[in-house]
Amino acid sequence: MPLINIPLKDFLKRALEEDIGNGDITTELTVREQHCSEAVILAKDDFIVAGLPFAKKIFSILVPGITFQQYVKEGQRVQSGDTLAWIKGPTRALLMGERTALNILQRLSGIATLTGRFVKEIADTGAILVDTRKTTPNMRYLEKYAVRVGGGMNHRFGLFDGILIKDNHIMASGGVTKAVESVKKGKHHLMKLEVEVKTLKELDEAITAGADIILLDNMKTETIREAVGIVGKHNPSPHLEASGGITIENVREVALTGVNLISSGAITHSATSVDISMKIL
Amino acid sequence: MPLINIPLKDFLKRALEEDIGNGDITTELTVREQHCSEAVILAKDDFIVAGLPFAKKIFSILVPGITFQQYVKEGQRVQSGDTLAWIKGPTRALLMGERTALNILQRLSGIATLTGRFVKEIADTGAILVDTRKTTPNMRYLEKYAVRVGGGMNHRFGLFDGILIKDNHIMASGGVTKAVESVKKGKHHLMKLEVEVKTLKELDEAITAGADIILLDNMKTETIREAVGIVGKHNPSPHLEASGGITIENVREVALTGVNLISSGAITHSATSVDISMKIL
Amino acid sequence: MPLINIPLKDFLKRALEEDIGNGDITTELTVREQHCSEAVILAKDDFIVAGLPFAKKIFSILVPGITFQQYVKEGQRVQSGDTLAWIKGPTRALLMGERTALNILQRLSGIATLTGRFVKEIADTGAILVDTRKTTPNMRYLEKYAVRVGGGMNHRFGLFDGILIKDNHIMASGGVTKAVESVKKGKHHLMKLEVEVKTLKELDEAITAGADIILLDNMKTETIREAVGIVGKHNPSPHLEASGGITIENVREVALTGVNLISSGAITHSATSVDISMKIL
Amino acid sequence: MPLINIPLKDFLKRALEEDIGNGDITTELTVREQHCSEAVILAKDDFIVAGLPFAKKIFSILVPGITFQQYVKEGQRVQSGDTLAWIKGPTRALLMGERTALNILQRLSGIATLTGRFVKEIADTGAILVDTRKTTPNMRYLEKYAVRVGGGMNHRFGLFDGILIKDNHIMASGGVTKAVESVKKGKHHLMKLEVEVKTLKELDEAITAGADIILLDNMKTETIREAVGIVGKHNPSPHLEASGGITIENVREVALTGVNLISSGAITHSATSVDISMKIL
Amino acid sequence: MPLINIPLKDFLKRALEEDIGNGDITTELTVREQHCSEAVILAKDDFIVAGLPFAKKIFSILVPGITFQQYVKEGQRVQSGDTLAWIKGPTRALLMGERTALNILQRLSGIATLTGRFVKEIADTGAILVDTRKTTPNMRYLEKYAVRVGGGMNHRFGLFDGILIKDNHIMASGGVTKAVESVKKGKHHLMKLEVEVKTLKELDEAITAGADIILLDNMKTETIREAVGIVGKHNPSPHLEASGGITIENVREVALTGVNLISSGAITHSATSVDISMKIL
Amino acid sequence: MPLINIPLKDFLKRALEEDIGNGDITTELTVREQHCSEAVILAKDDFIVAGLPFAKKIFSILVPGITFQQYVKEGQRVQSGDTLAWIKGPTRALLMGERTALNILQRLSGIATLTGRFVKEIADTGAILVDTRKTTPNMRYLEKYAVRVGGGMNHRFGLFDGILIKDNHIMASGGVTKAVESVKKGKHHLMKLEVEVKTLKELDEAITAGADIILLDNMKTETIREAVGIVGKHNPSPHLEASGGITIENVREVALTGVNLISSGAITHSATSVDISMKIL
Repeated sequence: MPLINIPLKDFLKRALEEDIGNGDITTELTVREQHCSEAVILAKDDFIVAGLPFAKKIFSILVPGITFQQYVKEGQRVQSGDTLAWIKGPTRALLMGERTALNILQRLSGIATLTGRFVKEIADTGAILVDTRKTTPNMRYLEKYAVRVGGGMNHRFGLFDGILIKDNHIMASGGVTKAVESVKKGKHHLMKLEVEVKTLKELDEAITAGADIILLDNMKTETIREAVGIVGKHNPSPHLEASGGITIENVREVALTGVNLISSGAITHSATSVDISMKIL
Repeated sequence: MPLINIPLKDFLKRALEEDIGNGDITTELTVREQHCSEAVILAKDDFIVAGLPFAKKIFSILVPGITFQQYVKEGQRVQSGDTLAWIKGPTRALLMGERTALNILQRLSGIATLTGRFVKEIADTGAILVDTRKTTPNMRYLEKYAVRVGGGMNHRFGLFDGILIKDNHIMASGGVTKAVESVKKGKHHLMKLEVEVKTLKELDEAITAGADIILLDNMKTETIREAVGIVGKHNPSPHLEASGGITIENVREVALTGVNLISSGAITHSATSVDISMKIL
Repeated sequence: MPLINIPLKDFLKRALEEDIGNGDITTELTVREQHCSEAVILAKDDFIVAGLPFAKKIFSILVPGITFQQYVKEGQRVQSGDTLAWIKGPTRALLMGERTALNILQRLSGIATLTGRFVKEIADTGAILVDTRKTTPNMRYLEKYAVRVGGGMNHRFGLFDGILIKDNHIMASGGVTKAVESVKKGKHHLMKLEVEVKTLKELDEAITAGADIILLDNMKTETIREAVGIVGKHNPSPHLEASGGITIENVREVALTGVNLISSGAITHSATSVDISMKIL
Repeated sequence: MPLINIPLKDFLKRALEEDIGNGDITTELTVREQHCSEAVILAKDDFIVAGLPFAKKIFSILVPGITFQQYVKEGQRVQSGDTLAWIKGPTRALLMGERTALNILQRLSGIATLTGRFVKEIADTGAILVDTRKTTPNMRYLEKYAVRVGGGMNHRFGLFDGILIKDNHIMASGGVTKAVESVKKGKHHLMKLEVEVKTLKELDEAITAGADIILLDNMKTETIREAVGIVGKHNPSPHLEASGGITIENVREVALTGVNLISSGAITHSATSVDISMKIL
Repeated sequence: MPLINIPLKDFLKRALEEDIGNGDITTELTVREQHCSEAVILAKDDFIVAGLPFAKKIFSILVPGITFQQYVKEGQRVQSGDTLAWIKGPTRALLMGERTALNILQRLSGIATLTGRFVKEIADTGAILVDTRKTTPNMRYLEKYAVRVGGGMNHRFGLFDGILIKDNHIMASGGVTKAVESVKKGKHHLMKLEVEVKTLKELDEAITAGADIILLDNMKTETIREAVGIVGKHNPSPHLEASGGITIENVREVALTGVNLISSGAITHSATSVDISMKIL
Repeated sequence: MPLINIPLKDFLKRALEEDIGNGDITTELTVREQHCSEAVILAKDDFIVAGLPFAKKIFSILVPGITFQQYVKEGQRVQSGDTLAWIKGPTRALLMGERTALNILQRLSGIATLTGRFVKEIADTGAILVDTRKTTPNMRYLEKYAVRVGGGMNHRFGLFDGILIKDNHIMASGGVTKAVESVKKGKHHLMKLEVEVKTLKELDEAITAGADIILLDNMKTETIREAVGIVGKHNPSPHLEASGGITIENVREVALTGVNLISSGAITHSATSVDISMKIL
């Protein structure tokens, strides 16, 4: 858990509130307030674990100081049947936090696991796998965390902490050169500048305009390879990011072109939940 | 959009804030404040559309009264290339709302589409497909909406508006009969009572205790069929819900057993985003 | 206190803020920050106690971990002069929390006491006393809690966790049968369905349409008795709820008709505060 | 409605949210989104009206710009059957706002009506009726408004905008004189200073210490009369406020003693709701 | 820290969030989570200290229970090089709270120091220095605190806890007498009444109308002296507050006229930050 | 005003709430609700204007759609007596928004004006003036805006959108080289990397480690000049930022050394408010 992140803390509280509302009718009518239990969180699939500190936080919101022992580390690969964590506390709290904690764990582990598959494909190529802004609304912080746990790197967090000039920006400002110049004049000096291009002609323009990084949008592998060759002739040469249509099948091929970065929306927007359950002992 | 739903409205505002933070550096430096544009939202896949009213709300939060014309209806099946909506307004607003609106649309349409596939399988069987609480944290309202758009029905929204006695409740309260009695004494009179069972023996107990609905947890198709036979001999007979391990492959088979309801976590937790893009004209 | 109920916790915090604002001028100028005291909360009337856990929470918000010993149980009948609780902590906190804690205790105990009077009247009749949505804005959770403490049962909490088709719904949807059908098609399977009727003719329609519960709105005792006879001839027979104009004088008479439920707005909207004070020792 | 009062606006929004939550199931399933209606708000009792601007606000939160015509003025005395307001808009909004709007109107009108009875008793005496801090948590602004509508005056709003030294403050600071001195040294120059006394001896101390107003706590009418005589001999003479045990039966007698102010907790904490209903036309 | 002040607590949390957002990239990449340090807060100027309890709160928000020892008292005059406080805790927390804590300390100490200079000038004159509402938005509570630490007194906190009739109010209500009468009729009895005047003619009107305090707006010293003479002839005589254009150069001269109060916007709106730094040991 | 910035909008609302609380007693008692007025905002000093869009927002929060005509542009230099804006609306709104609007305008214009003085000094030198994080808590967005209006550039907004390795980070991670390497491995590819150095020896290390920008902390002008010489020999050469002890007297001298950037805390933390008033016509 980060030291301070009010939106994240709010997110977790609200998630509990979404599920519990005015109370867990079933639990309140069947379990006494003083009843305590132990429970384990169990893997029912093989996957890379991500999200345990947030699952812990969920139970801690319900009962500050509740016992939650993590049995595996974030990023560890587990098998079906493995125990991920052990919890001890009021039974009501265990039952009321269960679904919310599992929903977070299942999604984050799903993302970490999918990311891990992509990363493994390109491990020896020098290319870096990065995520995108194609994340679940209000879960970006958590999902980008899961990407890192899975071995990927983060792209910018949002529109506020990184610059990426896209075709629409270029159109609205009257060309690559003009767009780059406007940005250079106004951005703070700790920010680099990335430009998205769709053709090799645009690539040339972006190089000349002085982009730090150039995003090759939806190019064929062949063209990407050509692009790598072109920038290689410049010094300093901008970095290249391949993006669009990256799949587990083609990611290695793209990486082998020599690009520096490969960004994939799929690792967040098309990850599916892994199976995790909680069992009262 | 519901008339009043503060958590939902907050959810959409926060989603925008998550992406934009202190500002969209790139857009603010390349697009003049007064610059206006038209844009279309385009399908890049074949799918069932869900979420357009929320996409509209996203742009309306940025610019109250912005023009957003829906070209297709919620629940309509579209093909790659179809125009879903047409927007007109300040270019900055279009660019700043784009990612958030698309992330919502892509996820909700993904859920509606997957739900639609399940529903189609069982359309002629009399069984009803319902969702679960295995939804993305803080998106439950939206995801359950998408399930309805896709032709499914909703299960309870949370722990507060429906009663489902599970194994842990039974254990903590000392048996099915005791649990059911405790709940009957305390619940308000507009609520029914559902009990989860794992065996036919527990099924008998649940029937005797007077459950209104009985959830058959992770039973084989054969056992489910047997259960249908058993409850059929009672009058009034409780409804049966099959749950656990339901896939697109086996859903029809389960439906043909004669159960009343089939619940699937997969339609929300394992739906992947469909591809939708926004294009400035 | 429920484990998680953000609106409730906010309600209590805001209540303190409403009273204290930027500070308690008098107390800050007359009592040193380090000064500590003991205090007792005293009954000045005879009544049924409700609300002590929330009074405790009020002081705990001011000073986490403050000592607050409950001397009587919720629901206990006390007499003027009885000590309800004993508090020990910074004098400033005692004085700043006093009014808010008492305002809550006085109102909740007033509701529990009035509810208790109604319940006593019908104790041997088989009829159940339930509350309504005629509660103080933003205090519904607390007031419905007080009703339970006083021996009553809760009706639905709001428009979201129970279905009650009223005359206006019937008018807008074109008749009882149509309204009931629309609701049956859309409601989730854990919800029952209640319909409000004003005449015996409407009662017949509601029975035929298949209502689970029927609310008899503002009917004379005689007519209610007739209604009880009518539903008795059906199997399964819907439950009956008498509502409208229920007073402490007529509640027994209504109960003796054989209705299952009697709902009373008076127990919440016309309860007056009991007298409770805090005394620094 | 005040121009800006964020807690009040939040209070109204939350009240709606409390009732509606994730939606009004019954209304959404029986009334089409486009269906419009007219409705009237009707008195079912004789009372003084208070709260119509807030009832209007409730419907306006649901549908900005909804038509809400006030037929009577705040503070007007109405009879059973009188129309208080006429509303026109989406039927769903009318039904979803109904209960919350009525709950507010019923309570505020109840307070205004009770206040009016007290005020009438003392109208010719020169004494002023004021309220206390014994109000419903989080409704103080609204309830003090209703007191003014009923003809009373407000005491301080909270601990932050007025000074009242009570017995506990005196005890903790070591005597009346010391307490008054501490307060005089620290309070801002726009604040007066009131001291609570229980005996005529304490009254003398308070006069000598230089209190601007003196609250006579729970004194017999006779003693109050004596107190009036005592302060009358001083110039400038502090104002006197009689407090504690004021009822509709004794308020006139107390007023005739010549005190300047009479404060009553009963007008807020023991007002009961008047009967008001909404009827769709 | 006051016991309860939700806006203040929010202010401090938001200030941290403003600086940290989604995380302190630099610190998280260079300092291990477990790394602990000690640090001191050092004066780099000569000044009056104000704000240490709030600096402590900043670090406590990051790490509840963190060690923060105050080495000097609020209001103490320190010299460059003096240690103000000593902190011990996780290095990340120290680095992430540093800037926010210092920004608060620097500003509040700047205000206390400037206030101290004004107060010293008039220490022997009997006049009291008070602040105004010319404070930094949302920091008024803190800045008025710093004024008190520096030896000044507070004027009203806002528009809600004190009455000051200005020229615009007089114009809109039709004259001093009418304005004063309206206010007297409506204000609660614990509030005094201050009127702003620009000429001696208006002063006469205000005295006759019965103002408790009269603010002399932007008058020359000579005229102020005359005003003091005029009110001196009345019994009881209203207090006088000189305001407008008060500087460190002329404050003594104004005080010597015999006015009771001198208000200065400069002590808040024109105080500059003192230099304070944090050093990891 | 940015399209979406929830913290900013909250900031403005809260600022109004801070001043108005439960109401503007004086205005509500002296000005009728329907009374309307025109007013002008006037300069009483010579300065650079900043903040008018936010002043407008303040009045718009009170009365949506209120008329507010800006007479001068942001960044324009005005003289005492110039009209900055003309407002027309309910008198109550004008009086209740006045102080908050002016407090914002006065502070932002003060910052823009001071920034303008620094910028003018170095206009012909090629050096760029940037701000720091030494801003008023919760006003950073507004104050950094004022810096831009005054002709300066912004440094990073917070700890989350730019990397600056300081001495404490270097100490905690074990040297410049190690710190730089850790950051390079973890930062996203759109971020540059700045390192703070105190000596020329550290400068060498930072250059070797590959810093993009190097901050020269509190160096003498002479040493800064030497540093410029040193980096000039490298290709690519990192940018240099001079920081610490920059005053209006020495800023030109520092700029003439050839550094790329000069950062000044004084332009925000030591700007004093300019004089601006509102006059009802």
